[in-house]
Order: sequence, then C-alpha cells, then structure tokens
Amino acid sequence: MTPDHATLFAAAARHGDTLARQRLVLYAGANLPSPEVIAATAPGLGAMPSMGPSFDKEQPGTELVSQFEVAVRQEACALFRAGWAEPRLPSATLCNLAVFHAFARPGELMLAPDKAQGGHLSQRRGGTPDLAGLVCDELPFDAAGLCLDATGAARMVEERRPRLVMLGRSAMVRADDIAPVVAAARAVGATTVFDASHVAGLIAGGTYPNPLEAGVDVLVTSTYKTLPGLPHGLILGRDPAQGEALTRLLDARFLANSNAALLPPLLRLLTDMRAGATDYAGRVVANTAALAEACRARGLPVIAPEAGHTHQMLIPIAAGAAPRALVAALAESGVIIGLCPDITRPGGTALRVGTQFLATLGLLAPDMEAVADILAGLLSGDDGVGLRPDPAPGTPARIEDLLAGPA
Amino acid sequence: MTPDHATLFAAAARHGDTLARQRLVLYAGANLPSPEVIAATAPGLGAMPSMGPSFDKEQPGTELVSQFEVAVRQEACALFRAGWAEPRLPSATLCNLAVFHAFARPGELMLAPDKAQGGHLSQRRGGTPDLAGLVCDELPFDAAGLCLDATGAARMVEERRPRLVMLGRSAMVRADDIAPVVAAARAVGATTVFDASHVAGLIAGGTYPNPLEAGVDVLVTSTYKTLPGLPHGLILGRDPAQGEALTRLLDARFLANSNAALLPPLLRLLTDMRAGATDYAGRVVANTAALAEACRARGLPVIAPEAGHTHQMLIPIAAGAAPRALVAALAESGVIIGLCPDITRPGGTALRVGTQFLATLGLLAPDMEAVADILAGLLSGDDGVGLRPDPAPGTPARIEDLLAGPA
Repeated sequence: MTPDHATLFAAAARHGDTLARQRLVLYAGANLPSPEVIAATAPGLGAMPSMGPSFDKEQPGTELVSQFEVAVRQEACALFRAGWAEPRLPSATLCNLAVFHAFARPGELMLAPDKAQGGHLSQRRGGTPDLAGLVCDELPFDAAGLCLDATGAARMVEERRPRLVMLGRSAMVRADDIAPVVAAARAVGATTVFDASHVAGLIAGGTYPNPLEAGVDVLVTSTYKTLPGLPHGLILGRDPAQGEALTRLLDARFLANSNAALLPPLLRLLTDMRAGATDYAGRVVANTAALAEACRARGLPVIAPEAGHTHQMLIPIAAGAAPRALVAALAESGVIIGLCPDITRPGGTALRVGTQFLATLGLLAPDMEAVADILAGLLSGDDGVGLRPDPAPGTPARIEDLLAGPA
Repeated sequence: MTPDHATLFAAAARHGDTLARQRLVLYAGANLPSPEVIAATAPGLGAMPSMGPSFDKEQPGTELVSQFEVAVRQEACALFRAGWAEPRLPSATLCNLAVFHAFARPGELMLAPDKAQGGHLSQRRGGTPDLAGLVCDELPFDAAGLCLDATGAARMVEERRPRLVMLGRSAMVRADDIAPVVAAARAVGATTVFDASHVAGLIAGGTYPNPLEAGVDVLVTSTYKTLPGLPHGLILGRDPAQGEALTRLLDARFLANSNAALLPPLLRLLTDMRAGATDYAGRVVANTAALAEACRARGLPVIAPEAGHTHQMLIPIAAGAAPRALVAALAESGVIIGLCPDITRPGGTALRVGTQFLATLGLLAPDMEAVADILAGLLSGDDGVGLRPDPAPGTPARIEDLLAGPA
C-alpha cells in the first residue's frame, strides 16, 4: 500500500465519524446507518451468485439467500403495507429503469415531474426514462401551494392517456394530494409509480401519506435518505401480478446476480423501522418545523408550508449568488447542504435543507435554534440568500459543540 | 428481532467461514474476498450521494469519494493496461447494459455469443441486449477446439457489419483467439466489447491474454469471480473519448448516485492484485490442469484443453441425469458446483467446475487429487456423469479435512 492510499483508507474508515461529529449534514438525501445495520452486512453471503427466484435459484447452496429475500419482502410489505416487494436492485434509479422496462414499451408516454420542481434525473425527460425509450411530458405544479397541481395533473392524465404516471420528486416540502391523479390513471389504464426515495422513512413513520394506500400501483425508493439504511433500492406494489412481471424481467434481462451481502442490513433496517419509524419520522418533521421557524426568526427566507412538513425546507438563493460556490463555501465551514431548483421561481435555485440526518444523530427540535444560528451566521439576504460578507468565525467549533450534545 | 431473524443473521455472519471450511466450492463464478478487502468497506463514505464527475460533483463535501474514484481508475488502468476505467457500476450485467446504451442505438446489430456455448444473459439474444433494443445474432463456435471460431466470426463481422461485437462467455475452458475478429470489427467500424467477468483475474495475472492488448475497445468485468473482490462491476477501455461518452451517459441517465462505500474495497482488491495476481493466476491454472488430469485418471469425463487452461473445466452430464437434481445432491454433500451448457454437444448440459475459489483458500495442485477423489466418490459415468448409485459416505468430513489443510 502506498502512503497516499494509506491516507485515503484511513480517512474512509473514519468518514462516518467525521460526518457525525464534525459536519452539520443538512443534505436532504443522506443518512447514517446504525452500527447494527452496518454490522449486519454479510460479505460471505455475497461470495456466490444467487440468480433467479427465491428457493429456485440457478446456484446450489443458496438457500440462506432465499430465506433473506423472503424475510426482507415480508418486512418491506408489512412496513409499507404493500402486496409485493422486490429487494434486489442496488439503487432507486435502477429500480425506476426496471419499472419502465417492466410496465411500458419504447415510444409510450409517461407523465412525469418537471426538473424545475425537483424531477430527478431517474424520473424525467432527458434522464433514465430515455433509456427505455419513453416519451415524457411534464406534470403541472402548484407553485403557490408548494405541491403537485393535482387537479391539473388528473385532467392531463385523462386527456393524454399515458402508459405511466410518475409521481414524487426530489424536492418535496409538503405532501402531494395524489388521489385525483390515481383515479384518473385508473380510468385510462395507466400505471402509477411513486418515487418515494426522499420520503420513504416518513411514509414508514406515518407522517407522509402512504402512496400505496392512496392507490398507487408501484412505489420505488432508495434506502439511505429518510430511511437510515445502506444505499440500496426497493420496489413495492399492490398487485402481485405486477410484482411477478417485474421479477421475470429482472431474472431474464436486467439483474442476473445481485449482491446478497446487502440483504441482511436491509432486513435489519426494515425491522428497526417497524419498531422505530413512527418516533423517528415524528422527530424529523418536528425538527423541520422548528428549523423553518428559527430560520425565519433570524431573517432567512424559507420555502416551507405552515404545517405538514417533510424532512425538507428550501432557502432560496439570491439571483446574484453563484449556487455552487455558495454550497462549496458552506462546506468549507463544515455545513453540508445541497442545491435544488427553487420550486416557486422558474430558473431560480435554492438550498435544499434536510433534517433527517441530524434526527438520526439524536438532535431534537430545541437544537434547531443552534442550527439556525449557524446558518444565519453564514447566510444573509431577505428575498434570496448569499454568503454573508462577514461570515461568523468559529463555525467548525460550534458544529462540534452542537454534535457533542449534552454529554 | 424475532428468533427466526436472529438465526438468519447468525448464519449470514458465519457464511463466509462456512464456505471456506465446510463446503467444496467449485462454482466457477464465485470467490472469497480477503479480510483486508472486506475491512476496507467504508459505510460512512456511502452515507451521502456523490453524483457526477470526480471533483465536480453535485454534492459538496465529497472530495474523498473523488479521490477514491481517481485512485481506483489509476489502479484499474495499470492492472489491465487500459486507457480509461469506470468503477461506479454495481455489477457486470449493468455494465453491459450501460455499454449497449453508450455505444449503440436501438435497432442496431450486435454479434454475440450463443447461449449454447455460455453466452450470459447479459450478453446475448433474449437477455440484457433486448433492453437496449439491440438486434442480436450469434457468433460461430469451434466445438472441437473448445473456443470461438475466430475465422468464422471475423467473416461474419465483415459480412454483417454489426455496430457491436460482444466477446467472452461464462464458459471458457481455454482462451479465444480474438485478433481476427478485432481486425474485422475495426475494418467495418464496429465497437468490440469483451466480457471478462470470468477471466479478469487471469488476465490480471497474465495467464489469459489481455483483450485490451489484442485491440478490444471495451472490457467489462465483475470483481468477484476470478478477481477475489466484493461483488461490483468495472468497465475499462482504450480510447479516452469512449470513456468520456460512457461517463456522460452514466451521469445524465443511468447512474445518478453509486455506493461509494464500495470504492475502498475495490481499490484494495486492485492494489492486492497488482502485487499478487501473477502468483494467484498461476496457481489457478495449475490447479485446473491438475484437477482435469486427476478426474480423468479416475474415469470421469472432462472437457478441458490439453494445455492453456483457465479456472474452468467442464464435466458433461449424462443425458438421463437431471442436471438440477444432480447439483442439488452434490450440494447436500457439501460440493458446490454450477451448471452450464455442454459446449461440445448441442442441447447437452455440463458441470462447470472452477478452481479459483479453492486457490484463494490456498489449495495447490497436489490438493486436486483429494478434490478428484471427492468428485469421483459422488459421480460416475464414462460419456456423461450422474450421481453414483453408491455415493461415498462421509464427504462432508473429507471436505472439512481437506480445507483444514496441514494445520
């Protein structure tokens, strides 16, 4: 091993601790798995392939993998009140691609979220749907209401008669009312997909309405955003026949092997969530509400509803400020925040602030005063923010103090 | 945790040991990563996404991930003498899918291996190429020579003028001569892809000719077959412009995030292989040659060349024997072997025997006598094998003795 590599390996080994103790992680799509979830990783289980249906696999001696697949499916279905679950794909983007191939053909129409309101590259025109040959058109958005324009979207579904309707976005500061869209999709025979990557932990905890209970056919999620797991993908649905169609596609064309080493930590995540998601999600949304209020009290502009929070709130960036330079400067001070479109202003950019990582670390609503202090010490602006000309010194030390807690 | 789950987690945690001490793993597409490779896994590094090009990522605070990406690319290029490397995809099947999208368009022709000679579902008609809309036709095979019919394949490339030529198979008992095919592909402007998933460790060790040095454009591999790593994918190539085209596809449409926790173990694997692949690959092919000879000496039919071995040899299965029942019965005795088509007989099935797992455990050529004893104690048949009517008792104990070594 070269000295350079030794330095890298050492930094990688302590990176979780670095994030937990020395960074204020307000990135809205990240989380820190528990030591128990991490420890459940089973490299020996991934040493051999395990292709095909559970207990009917191509490889002999893979019964333990099949047992985990069955257990994960059971826990996932119980947690999300689903009829079927597919736990073998490594990311939500690849789950979306598999869903496109399973439930649509090239040339068919998908109505999908607009990039301007947080449509993720795996959901929208110009991204993953293009690989499956889908034609995309954008669902309407209610900028004043900070959510999907449900009435307009339902009307669009009725008129355009798409094959797929993709719901959910990577910017979601409040819950969408998807019922009218689901009803319209059923009426025209369209399959509805909800990408819950950002809010799956809140759905599990009951603070975000369950799209499957609202009638959505297929729910896709990643497992390391509001769910505090290792990076992975998960697909769930209502109709077992759709689950079987998806499984056939995976086994014949898409998947071949998957990494079975990651099934035990996924099982552990799901069982932990069945026990603790209600408490966790409650803390997340309470923290978001408290942080939004504390930021507003310090004069920072905040895009978030008055009630019904998710893990996210947005802070619009001033037109003159360079967004990437801004988040880089924040990161220099130890504050990790990402960007997203300003969902209220076409062409605008916002800081997308997420509270789920800090909730995992145990921070509670009263701690959000200190978080807001740190943000207000670095950012200023009434309408949109930029870096203060006089940023507060000592931010890294304040972050360490905050994360050290009451000890 | 339920008692059932506790039992599963405990079995998963010891499964690597189970394979190393209590199973005779002759499955040709598996391996056991070293404790150092496993320990390099860095869950903290995967806690946040890291989307986009190295050092120009969407997420702030991801410099360490970029450093690993650069280091992995450097090591991979050095090990395989490549011009570029893409280390972010989770499996070779998904690498192949990405390659199809990056270098071909729907409706274009790919010449590919036939399923009957070990064409993998990710390589062939009816499998992953269909997802990218490719039209597949099968390359000719030289059954007597146990390899690609290079002359016939070159002629086919000249006549059919495909967009892609897919080389490599999941059954490879000797090296193909790909030079004529590469020359023909260049002449017609086709891109050549070599799926080295099964022989990458042998290429790294110099016992299998390096396809990139033979002029192949793109090499795809998994990292847990003859390479003793964790399950992952790796794409390498010669022309940096092709690498950039692939990266653009991944970043815009295919990948979004990847699991950066797996970059340190991949780096460790590659650096370990740079130091040890020559020795390892030499032991693998020596063991294969010894096992083939020892099996023949015991009257078992073996499909393997006289010289120039890989990690594989085939044992044809008798027409009357049910292949899946046979490998299940072997697994009951602790012997893990998979199936593949009998590349010498259309419609036939063979046991595909691989020696790479046992080489990782430290077994040497003389140990293959004991391995052959175990096989001959369970299998019989001149032309093709079936389970002996009188299988030798005590196989599990003999396996444990063999794996316990000289202590």
